[in-house]
Amino acid sequence: MTRTSTLSPVPPADAAAEPTRVAVSTVIFTLRRLPGSETASVALPLVRRTRDPHEGLWALPGGWLDATEGLDAAASRTLAETTGLAPSYLEQLYAFGAVDRSPSRVVSIVYWALIRPDEIADASDENVQWFDAASLPGLAFDHNQIVDYALWRLRNKVGYSRIAHGLLADEFTLAELREVYEAILGRRLDPANFRRQVENSGTLIPTDRFRTGSHRPARLYRYNQDVELADRGPLDRRQ
Amino acid sequence: MTRTSTLSPVPPADAAAEPTRVAVSTVIFTLRRLPGSETASVALPLVRRTRDPHEGLWALPGGWLDATEGLDAAASRTLAETTGLAPSYLEQLYAFGAVDRSPSRVVSIVYWALIRPDEIADASDENVQWFDAASLPGLAFDHNQIVDYALWRLRNKVGYSRIAHGLLADEFTLAELREVYEAILGRRLDPANFRRQVENSGTLIPTDRFRTGSHRPARLYRYNQDVELADRGPLDRRQ
Repeated sequence: MTRTSTLSPVPPADAAAEPTRVAVSTVIFTLRRLPGSETASVALPLVRRTRDPHEGLWALPGGWLDATEGLDAAASRTLAETTGLAPSYLEQLYAFGAVDRSPSRVVSIVYWALIRPDEIADASDENVQWFDAASLPGLAFDHNQIVDYALWRLRNKVGYSRIAHGLLADEFTLAELREVYEAILGRRLDPANFRRQVENSGTLIPTDRFRTGSHRPARLYRYNQDVELADRGPLDRRQ
Repeated sequence: MTRTSTLSPVPPADAAAEPTRVAVSTVIFTLRRLPGSETASVALPLVRRTRDPHEGLWALPGGWLDATEGLDAAASRTLAETTGLAPSYLEQLYAFGAVDRSPSRVVSIVYWALIRPDEIADASDENVQWFDAASLPGLAFDHNQIVDYALWRLRNKVGYSRIAHGLLADEFTLAELREVYEAILGRRLDPANFRRQVENSGTLIPTDRFRTGSHRPARLYRYNQDVELADRGPLDRRQ
């Protein structure tokens, strides 16, 4: 066996005949409260496909990687072009490349982000709609699987600081933060335990201000800016 | 602005002229003790490039994605072809796609794995060599950056069970496990603190057996099989 690098500058002939193409897609999570509902739920925007394959089905916002842009830039651009959304930070989630995930060979680099409800402009396009993550229709390609994976990462990998920054206003009560966690985890949390965990985490800073209203005044917290929103280590911010 | 999905079945003409190509590369970490050294260090295999670009430089093992294989399969195949190594499990690390990372446009899906020293066959190929991760030469493409990122992930994201399974034999002493951690973190750890953390982690199970020799007998541990080696959530094992 010849053990040399197979990275040659020229692709094999069969690959050139029908090249693998690279797309980017983005999963954007927000929190929304349906009218009359007691609880908030996780929602994401989908785009209706206007051409084959899967014309008419809903899909994650995305598009083709342009030859002159990096992956991060492609994710931001295609998200803005398809939904008008511009989150301050997109994080790479995973590359999906199963052979049969599309009629032609497509590797999709998937990004994700959290966005606050107040960052979302009213959609005036009937081909863009927000869906409850817990009750999605059958999506185009393998996008149901991609959303499942993104939800799993959201539930497992996201710290208090990040959630607070991504989905809440600059200052928030512990009850508001707990509601976010309940929506993501899909279950109720004990308020006393939750308060203890948050206070021990070091990611939130209590302020001197209180939310007043019909209930007992509740202290407002802000997230600790010293804790990285998304630590990518030695990776450059743009690549 | 037209807000419809830009995922059309036909790529734009300029992209077709010089298509973006997809490669896979793999970072394989093991532990080795240099002759006469008191401590172990993290090492990885590199492959000497035998053609341009970067002919003669060392690079991560890898190759082009074949049109008929998934990403995981491509990583396994190209790793075996270039180094003869076949780890039981490869995990996707990150997709690197900066525009200028190669003379032509290449998106590399990078995988990583841990491998035990006894799983490594003697290399008989002068174009494959193991390097100390802490003192790499200048590598081809952006591969130094990729290794830095993989090391950062190794230091930050890896639990006791995973390390034990990936780099140690089935049964090991706490001193052996601590040595692995010291090599990865690049610093000495307090034995008593380390023991306490491991015992609290729930990822290791003490056995009734002891390592005997010139020192005081040391209890052997095994990793807890109930703890997932690499929890990928709802992702299929192969895609």
